[in-house]
Amino acid sequence: MTRIVVEQKVLKENDRLAAGLRARFRDAGVFCLNLISSPGAGKTSLIERTAAGLGSEMRLAVIDGDLATSLDADRAAAAGAQAVQINTGGQCHLDAAMVRRGLEELDLSQVDLLLVENVGNLVCPSAFDLGTRTRVLIASVPEGDDKPYKYPGSYHSIDVVLLNKIDLLPYVAFDVKRFLHGVEVLNPSLQSFLVSCQTGEGLEAWFAWLRREVAGMRAEVVR
Amino acid sequence: MTRIVVEQKVLKENDRLAAGLRARFRDAGVFCLNLISSPGAGKTSLIERTAAGLGSEMRLAVIDGDLATSLDADRAAAAGAQAVQINTGGQCHLDAAMVRRGLEELDLSQVDLLLVENVGNLVCPSAFDLGTRTRVLIASVPEGDDKPYKYPGSYHSIDVVLLNKIDLLPYVAFDVKRFLHGVEVLNPSLQSFLVSCQTGEGLEAWFAWLRREVAGMRAEVVR
Repeated sequence: MTRIVVEQKVLKENDRLAAGLRARFRDAGVFCLNLISSPGAGKTSLIERTAAGLGSEMRLAVIDGDLATSLDADRAAAAGAQAVQINTGGQCHLDAAMVRRGLEELDLSQVDLLLVENVGNLVCPSAFDLGTRTRVLIASVPEGDDKPYKYPGSYHSIDVVLLNKIDLLPYVAFDVKRFLHGVEVLNPSLQSFLVSCQTGEGLEAWFAWLRREVAGMRAEVVR
Repeated sequence: MTRIVVEQKVLKENDRLAAGLRARFRDAGVFCLNLISSPGAGKTSLIERTAAGLGSEMRLAVIDGDLATSLDADRAAAAGAQAVQINTGGQCHLDAAMVRRGLEELDLSQVDLLLVENVGNLVCPSAFDLGTRTRVLIASVPEGDDKPYKYPGSYHSIDVVLLNKIDLLPYVAFDVKRFLHGVEVLNPSLQSFLVSCQTGEGLEAWFAWLRREVAGMRAEVVR
């Protein structure tokens, strides 16, 4: 049982660090998202689209978690966001300590919206609180409509789901109702968006939601 | 450093069990594959297609690893394979002990080809030897051609890569050469197949390869 005890200690220490990060984000008025998905569901494409769509209205920063390479941070930076790459060196998820190290490269007083791109993995990241305000799961049409049923740990306790790659709906057997039903059963107060980062369809509603959330965060700081 | 020591112990014990499984498969003349992929890349669809294509020539069995539900084993059984479901209860990968438990439900003397479907995860499963002869990674076109570069741990030391969903190539930006180059750099003696489990394209070559490997395994037992 040693293994379980060690894991509980690791998670407890992570929660302590995450609480500290959450306080820092709140004090600085930074709205912060933890982006979780399978490999290739479209986290980086969503960041590119978001930077292009909102970059003139608010200051974006990205912390990019990957096993290897800086391909994603390079794409985020090319889209105009401040970007910090974290290579986890084989670890299958980001943890709060990694995010804290990433923050050493960012001046939070110059950031309105911070997007934390987790490692592409639909299992392990959900166990680690990163101190973010909101947890966003990015699903994609080619993965199949059964994923909320098969990965309940990650689909549970999310605040937002984006279903990406809806431009592929004509070519793939995917029942949007079955998918959304599976997510909503686990999260009754869920916010959902159907989008295509390829064509841009549906992204205006996502931008509008981000505008409201960022404005709400600023209002809390002023109060 | 306690955590690392515990993990090393877990992996060492897993390797011991895996060696035992490998000997059992060899003695029984069962050709056994470990199928690894991201969620939704097409492991279960490949199993369905393989059972339909080869079920009249050889005896197939499936051990299905999932966090939750028996959706995948149900599909494999419907396609005519003996199927055992293992629910990992949140664990992000199969290990040798789970496969050993799954084998209690199978009579290996009645099996020629055993497909072990791992949990959908492109990070953690690769660290755990399951005693299988061959490791097959199933990639899919919508995931993007950068995955071998971003997930080197899983793309390294595989024997076979199947690129699935090639029917979506007209609708997705995906450079097959870039993808294959990334895999072959990590595995110079790799076997690769381009397939669509939707249309059936490319599957004949996969079946032919399986026929040869299963026949080779039988020949070893006779010798």
